[in-house]
Amino acid sequence: MAVALDAMGGDRGPGPLVEGAVAAARDFGIEVILVGDKPLLEKELERLKADGLPICIQHATQVVGMAEAPSEALRRKKDSSIRVAFNLAKEGKAQGVVSAGNSGATLATAMFVLGRVKGIRPAIATLIPTLKETGLMIDVGANVDCKPHHLLQFGIMGSIFAKEFLKKPSPRIGLLSIGEEDSKGNQQVKKAYDFLAAADLNFVGNVEGRDVFKGDVDVVVCDGFVGNICLKLSEGLAEAVLTMLRNEIEGNLLAVMGYGLAKKAFRRFKQRVDYSEYGGAPLLGVKGTVIICHGRSGPRALKNAIRVADNLAALNLSEKIQNSISERKDFLRIV
Amino acid sequence: MAVALDAMGGDRGPGPLVEGAVAAARDFGIEVILVGDKPLLEKELERLKADGLPICIQHATQVVGMAEAPSEALRRKKDSSIRVAFNLAKEGKAQGVVSAGNSGATLATAMFVLGRVKGIRPAIATLIPTLKETGLMIDVGANVDCKPHHLLQFGIMGSIFAKEFLKKPSPRIGLLSIGEEDSKGNQQVKKAYDFLAAADLNFVGNVEGRDVFKGDVDVVVCDGFVGNICLKLSEGLAEAVLTMLRNEIEGNLLAVMGYGLAKKAFRRFKQRVDYSEYGGAPLLGVKGTVIICHGRSGPRALKNAIRVADNLAALNLSEKIQNSISERKDFLRIV
Repeated sequence: MAVALDAMGGDRGPGPLVEGAVAAARDFGIEVILVGDKPLLEKELERLKADGLPICIQHATQVVGMAEAPSEALRRKKDSSIRVAFNLAKEGKAQGVVSAGNSGATLATAMFVLGRVKGIRPAIATLIPTLKETGLMIDVGANVDCKPHHLLQFGIMGSIFAKEFLKKPSPRIGLLSIGEEDSKGNQQVKKAYDFLAAADLNFVGNVEGRDVFKGDVDVVVCDGFVGNICLKLSEGLAEAVLTMLRNEIEGNLLAVMGYGLAKKAFRRFKQRVDYSEYGGAPLLGVKGTVIICHGRSGPRALKNAIRVADNLAALNLSEKIQNSISERKDFLRIV
Repeated sequence: MAVALDAMGGDRGPGPLVEGAVAAARDFGIEVILVGDKPLLEKELERLKADGLPICIQHATQVVGMAEAPSEALRRKKDSSIRVAFNLAKEGKAQGVVSAGNSGATLATAMFVLGRVKGIRPAIATLIPTLKETGLMIDVGANVDCKPHHLLQFGIMGSIFAKEFLKKPSPRIGLLSIGEEDSKGNQQVKKAYDFLAAADLNFVGNVEGRDVFKGDVDVVVCDGFVGNICLKLSEGLAEAVLTMLRNEIEGNLLAVMGYGLAKKAFRRFKQRVDYSEYGGAPLLGVKGTVIICHGRSGPRALKNAIRVADNLAALNLSEKIQNSISERKDFLRIV
């Protein structure tokens, strides 16, 4: 089964998107449906000599701009590349959707077309680099105003994702707060602490900002406002450090040589921090597989995102989330 | 006039605290009152050969532990070093207080003994390194549950601080959110946006996590929960980067040499990120001058904190904040 790619979204036009699709088809044998302007995409495929690869095109007449309001896009652009990609998933013609386009519109369209898992607030999870193994942060932007029980839902979804995708037998769940003690935090987090502690999760308690990159927990739970700020702060800091390092070292030859190495090390780090390098962030809690990529994603990120979508679809994650929520029905009713 | 130092707080005992006080007295000629166990502090001063310096000791029989509940400390330890230090400020015997002890207790005692500026929610400001000039983030931990009008107050206080202390004629105020457009953010931030835009501040709109270190704004306004997480995340990330860099480079001699330089550059960066290196974070909005230091502050941080306290006291900051609030009385009443 195929992965549908919104081939018109993103900051850099269809070029890097199609290139990523071609790489995924060539390197992993994944079937890809490019959704967007057919003549344009045909030209791109020709340029990339993609003959014989399992790639096809689904025409869509409209494109949602990166700054367009999601509600407007949903109402007015019923033949946008995003919408058509999700329609393919809904109709069973694609097993997953990858989009580097307007992320608000992607989110809204995913919820509208695919629907939510019953009783769940969908959330965006992102893989994060740590000093130990790869971790997960959820939510990083889908929900800017969360109730405590939403954080519990993120913990449940994050636990399932970490178990199934990251192969952690019993994922350690941490709640992002401002101190380790259960008395620390704002009202939202203190209440969420109680819910998470009462749930049958491997909840290890609060974690602080400085623990995020240590890798002592597998899943960091936070509300989408805080998570989005953390994610972007990390990117910004990695960039700022690189720039400051360049300024510190400039003009010293030995240092410049060392800097070359340091720079490589840095770039690797920056890539690890930058979630596009993981191929994008999965949207959990909708009925289907969705990967949301950075607008500025390059071919490598897209290729990885398509692979992740393919892997995730095979895991039946949304069904597992649905089952887990059903099993916890009585508990979730009282929180 | 003197600066009172809680000489018993902090993770490392009185040693580095007294050492910082001695350095401040010696290098800047600032008068310091060490508050705490007299025999113990006398021994420290002897060890450091502090004869002839403008340092005296105010005895206090109790110490507030780093993990103690602030409310308990306030109720039961009326002769703690923190409490006695604030009493000195209240009585006019000290112009400012510096504490590296239990920060919750310091905060609570400051508000209780000195009192708040009328109509203000006190907040902790911290200086942040950027690619341009030094910036300010407020609040980084005093208020974990903020209303939109509290964020406005932080903007007003931050603006005054940046103008008076950082000598910026018209400080640019940014509101930490998840997108630049005024429509982006959670409910708290969207409302705060309107308040800040309506106030007579140089409000430049929302800033994202990645902008914090760019230096395009002078004051980043956020609630204390988000700010504290950002601060600690930055510290954790700087540490993680250093460790990863070490791992990447290990075993390559040339790289090791380059690494030595990179490491120095890094350490400078880390120091810039670590707010203890600025000598601590000023608590704004109380009637007096208070600097809250990291528990693990070393002598250098303490020395700087004492200097900052001395400088700030001379600026009459709390009076200026009070005046500014009074002038804005009508505006603040309607928000």
